[in-house]
Amino acid sequence: MESGQTNSAAAGDKTQNSSVPPVEGVAGGGTSYGWVDGGLQASSLGNGAIDPTKVHSADLLHVWSMPSTANVSQQEAPRPLEHVNLLAARNERESFQIALRPKVSWATSAIAGPVQVQCTDLCSSAGDRLVVGQSVTLRRVVPMLGVPDALVPIDPLNSQINLLPGETSAIWVSLNVPSGQQPGLYEGEIFISAMRAEAESRGESLTKSERYQLYKELRSCIDITEPRDYSSSEEMVQRLASTSTTLRRMLALPSFQDCQESNGLGDMMDEDVMNNVAVRLKLSLTVWDFTLPLTPSLPAVFGISETVIEDRFCLEHGTKGWYDALDHHFRWLLQYRISPFFCRWGDSMRILAYTCPWPADHPKAKEYYSDPRLAAYAVPYAPILSSTDAAKNSLRREVEILKSEAHWSKSYFYLWDEPLNMEQYDVICSISNELRSYASDVRILTTYYCGPSGSELAPSTFEAFVKVPNVLRPHTQIFCTSEWVLGTREDLVKDIVAELRPDLGEEWWTYVCMGPSDPQPNWHLGMRGTQHRAVMWRVWKEGGTGFLYWGTNCYEKAMIPSAEICFRRGLPPGDGVLFYPGEVFSSSHEPVASTRLERILSGMQDIEYLKLYSSRYGREEGLALLGKTGVYLGPDRYALDHGPIDVMRGEVYRTCRS
Amino acid sequence: MESGQTNSAAAGDKTQNSSVPPVEGVAGGGTSYGWVDGGLQASSLGNGAIDPTKVHSADLLHVWSMPSTANVSQQEAPRPLEHVNLLAARNERESFQIALRPKVSWATSAIAGPVQVQCTDLCSSAGDRLVVGQSVTLRRVVPMLGVPDALVPIDPLNSQINLLPGETSAIWVSLNVPSGQQPGLYEGEIFISAMRAEAESRGESLTKSERYQLYKELRSCIDITEPRDYSSSEEMVQRLASTSTTLRRMLALPSFQDCQESNGLGDMMDEDVMNNVAVRLKLSLTVWDFTLPLTPSLPAVFGISETVIEDRFCLEHGTKGWYDALDHHFRWLLQYRISPFFCRWGDSMRILAYTCPWPADHPKAKEYYSDPRLAAYAVPYAPILSSTDAAKNSLRREVEILKSEAHWSKSYFYLWDEPLNMEQYDVICSISNELRSYASDVRILTTYYCGPSGSELAPSTFEAFVKVPNVLRPHTQIFCTSEWVLGTREDLVKDIVAELRPDLGEEWWTYVCMGPSDPQPNWHLGMRGTQHRAVMWRVWKEGGTGFLYWGTNCYEKAMIPSAEICFRRGLPPGDGVLFYPGEVFSSSHEPVASTRLERILSGMQDIEYLKLYSSRYGREEGLALLGKTGVYLGPDRYALDHGPIDVMRGEVYRTCRS
Repeated sequence: MESGQTNSAAAGDKTQNSSVPPVEGVAGGGTSYGWVDGGLQASSLGNGAIDPTKVHSADLLHVWSMPSTANVSQQEAPRPLEHVNLLAARNERESFQIALRPKVSWATSAIAGPVQVQCTDLCSSAGDRLVVGQSVTLRRVVPMLGVPDALVPIDPLNSQINLLPGETSAIWVSLNVPSGQQPGLYEGEIFISAMRAEAESRGESLTKSERYQLYKELRSCIDITEPRDYSSSEEMVQRLASTSTTLRRMLALPSFQDCQESNGLGDMMDEDVMNNVAVRLKLSLTVWDFTLPLTPSLPAVFGISETVIEDRFCLEHGTKGWYDALDHHFRWLLQYRISPFFCRWGDSMRILAYTCPWPADHPKAKEYYSDPRLAAYAVPYAPILSSTDAAKNSLRREVEILKSEAHWSKSYFYLWDEPLNMEQYDVICSISNELRSYASDVRILTTYYCGPSGSELAPSTFEAFVKVPNVLRPHTQIFCTSEWVLGTREDLVKDIVAELRPDLGEEWWTYVCMGPSDPQPNWHLGMRGTQHRAVMWRVWKEGGTGFLYWGTNCYEKAMIPSAEICFRRGLPPGDGVLFYPGEVFSSSHEPVASTRLERILSGMQDIEYLKLYSSRYGREEGLALLGKTGVYLGPDRYALDHGPIDVMRGEVYRTCRS
Repeated sequence: MESGQTNSAAAGDKTQNSSVPPVEGVAGGGTSYGWVDGGLQASSLGNGAIDPTKVHSADLLHVWSMPSTANVSQQEAPRPLEHVNLLAARNERESFQIALRPKVSWATSAIAGPVQVQCTDLCSSAGDRLVVGQSVTLRRVVPMLGVPDALVPIDPLNSQINLLPGETSAIWVSLNVPSGQQPGLYEGEIFISAMRAEAESRGESLTKSERYQLYKELRSCIDITEPRDYSSSEEMVQRLASTSTTLRRMLALPSFQDCQESNGLGDMMDEDVMNNVAVRLKLSLTVWDFTLPLTPSLPAVFGISETVIEDRFCLEHGTKGWYDALDHHFRWLLQYRISPFFCRWGDSMRILAYTCPWPADHPKAKEYYSDPRLAAYAVPYAPILSSTDAAKNSLRREVEILKSEAHWSKSYFYLWDEPLNMEQYDVICSISNELRSYASDVRILTTYYCGPSGSELAPSTFEAFVKVPNVLRPHTQIFCTSEWVLGTREDLVKDIVAELRPDLGEEWWTYVCMGPSDPQPNWHLGMRGTQHRAVMWRVWKEGGTGFLYWGTNCYEKAMIPSAEICFRRGLPPGDGVLFYPGEVFSSSHEPVASTRLERILSGMQDIEYLKLYSSRYGREEGLALLGKTGVYLGPDRYALDHGPIDVMRGEVYRTCRS
């Protein structure tokens, strides 16, 4: 159709009527010249240097919003800018992204241009607020292996980011609704304004040599004016005159020109620029009267490698710095509705897993274990690494203290990762016997993806896997199986669950790691955003009562905090790495979350929505909602785009608000 | 094997002996932790802030070289740094790349850190030089659609580039050997040094408010010291004392701290840093006693869209700015051994093609047409767009002037792009009759990829294509066919050539555009570097005597010089775009070459090497050399990596040097 149009316009006409697109033929060479043109007219820009403070930023860059499940790549194509409408419960975090792409370059070197992003508080008509910096945060989305993943906080005082020619950048905006926030409609705006590049404004500031010149002249003036005994009035007149001359020379430095002109460096940026030339993104958040429970309904236990922390931050085990680092990581991960455990791997797949680095009688232990945000905690079985009498005695004491506490029901022991043969099963059983002699209601968690080799449990591999509880009872209470075993066969869940004895406190948990792989849900880099979020939909649909993930910081060894992040070989990229050391991206020591970690949080929050709905209308209706909205139907059938998620959440809001 | 090793090291040992890599198991969780470690030890870096002026840059970044045919992606993995050895003839450009990747981050925000790249002149033992900035140039390789392509000049006065965490950057180094250069071995070095980030040194420079404070205090001191009639000595003493106090307050500003400490802001960078902490890349270039002919042996005519220039640079046809812009483009492209023609497309596939925007009687016309670097030029057939009497008369005059000049043998008319039916053939024939009435030896170039529809030339499509000369004789002398028609069937060349009458001055040229596609040689973005260079190897092997490319600047319409580059829809990315407007990347108006354009130049240079070799040993031996070195065997069998290219060039050097 367009070809036809192009055909009919004669080139000769063009010079007469410039509104007709120029014609360059229809095949080969000239294909569709002038038809993709997004309205980039010279208009106000002209063809000389562009001063971004005098041009509307909409002429300089595309701005549009994207949902949190979008992987906004550097090649992402612009879309229209629309009002952003979000829904969130109290104690919930809801995020979206702002995508930015230069239409033109306005800087004079290396980049297309710098952009300032400023956000207002979100206010309700009742005068309640969500405050920027606390409840509203901005982070740059930084690619890892070319995939948008790391979320690097933007300094609220210097929220400038540089856009590159031909590249889309993204900013991750999170709204954190406190538990005590008043429900209501909150509105705010985000202003995006193109800035003058520093290189250009550098002309206004002092160069090193000017600064040194100033320094020398100031010193010489001090020498001249310094209090002393003057021999005569003439000397003083001369000294004053000489000082005056020197001072005048200093004021003539180019750097002070604009001080004279503007008579006060009137900083036109901020207020005026925001109103006059910024692109404005309107933002509405409906906070509703549901409060996500402080304690996650589903315990999700995630490993943090202490070895990685020790190596990268050069910390010796047991020093103050080491305790501080672990404490920092624990607190930071808690915000993701995750129950962290630290771990160190021994030989074979022995693992020392513990949630609190302090002994049970230390005040910090109570603080950790009683934290309502912690849904489950690992008690260290110290003898796993060195089976001394001292280790055994300390373990016994530890259990004796803990078992009398109210939080003891959250405790578990995690002793061995994926035992494979009867020898390894025997170790678990023997430890279990020891532990149960200290506390009869001890809970042991065992991960596995197959039955033990060297036993004659069952004729087929899957049956041997299903029969594992028969071998490990009563030495394991939390049977934690890999989702990889199920593949897309959700129906196999009933076979696993049928072997369990809930009456004995047995639970079924699941985990993901290297497997399952695409198209099933997992947290590997390069999977879709909905695929990341779907891990928790899957857990909820399959009915497991807990979840384990082996590692959140398991990147390759390095001995420098800011060393490049390398993923470990043999693992799919991103596997075992859900956050990065802040030092790689800035001087901050705060860990840098991945988009995948944010999507895990969203999935954990979705579980609370589904649980609320099910508590009102029954689990069957909850499952029906998950399916009919198209959010999740099975391990290879779930939402590919964000739409269904908002529909489901909106439906829970509509049907469950009071 | 590594698993075994990992297994045997007990975790308990680790605390005793830190040289044993930490153990994290062998499957799942712990895979190969500590084994990929590239020697990144805390050593001199410690775990605090890194001062790049005090640490060897080799501890901060990887530096390694890559050949010009490598597409160095952001994920390119580091290799060992080796001495770079190159070979070049006189009047030749030889390029390679330096890849950089941060090992750690040393900047405090947004980037891993800035790096300075400095190059020495290349000197021979006889004292001859290749001077940096003229004969040695540095350009940043900037991705387009994620593919490394644009070569943005690095300001020689500010050769700083910013490295990003987890990303490999590349610098394109070109050595341009002047025709008069003395043969010999030239040696030089490139110094790569990590720099302190500006944000950090900003602490040392004056902030805006400090600057304004200084300005105010200076003014007040001037007021105090200004010559006047003083009432008393006391007044003068007071004025001097007051000035002294104010001056001391100014000197106490944080910005002047380092002036006091260093007592002179000794700029440690440059000389000292280069010697002490820079990574040094050694560079040797053998210049040999062959001089590439100024006039390329193979005419390669490349189109420049005047429409695109007019739109983007907002230039009205025929104004001084318009002439300047065309002149600028013409001169710039000549350095690539390319013979440019400007073009404007009419309806259907009519095309107005001309090499010189000035009429034949203008002094510039002689300058253009006589330029020895121009191997062929297009004479404008103005009536193609508007067939007025004036246009026809001016054409006649044009031909009459040109046909008496020595350069007339380089002339051709290009009237229609890919005529498809007899009606279009008839237009060509009628113009040809007109032109031959002005000059009997006129050369008309016609591009085509099939026979005319609506004729009964031959039973099969390919035969109809091969018979085109029978229809167009004597109305076309340069039969320019698409390489796409041949596919991988090199043997079909003889069928095409068999139909031509060299005795009548008929020639066979070829072209590429949308086709052929991968794996055949072409210039699309995302193809291998050797695939780009292989286009010219193919031309030489197939024996065509010229080459045409439809467009070098045919990106999508925009009306602002620095507007984002969009490729036209319907075309493979990069097709018709071999360079970019400089304004997109910096304030420079100089076009920015693509890596593909550089590889075209390399291919054109390869043709001169092959021609030299063939002139000594015969064309059969030349073809044998191309094959036995593995450079080019056919459209789907050619070198995938750079090695064979150096072998072939080295062989020509070895066997042809005097």
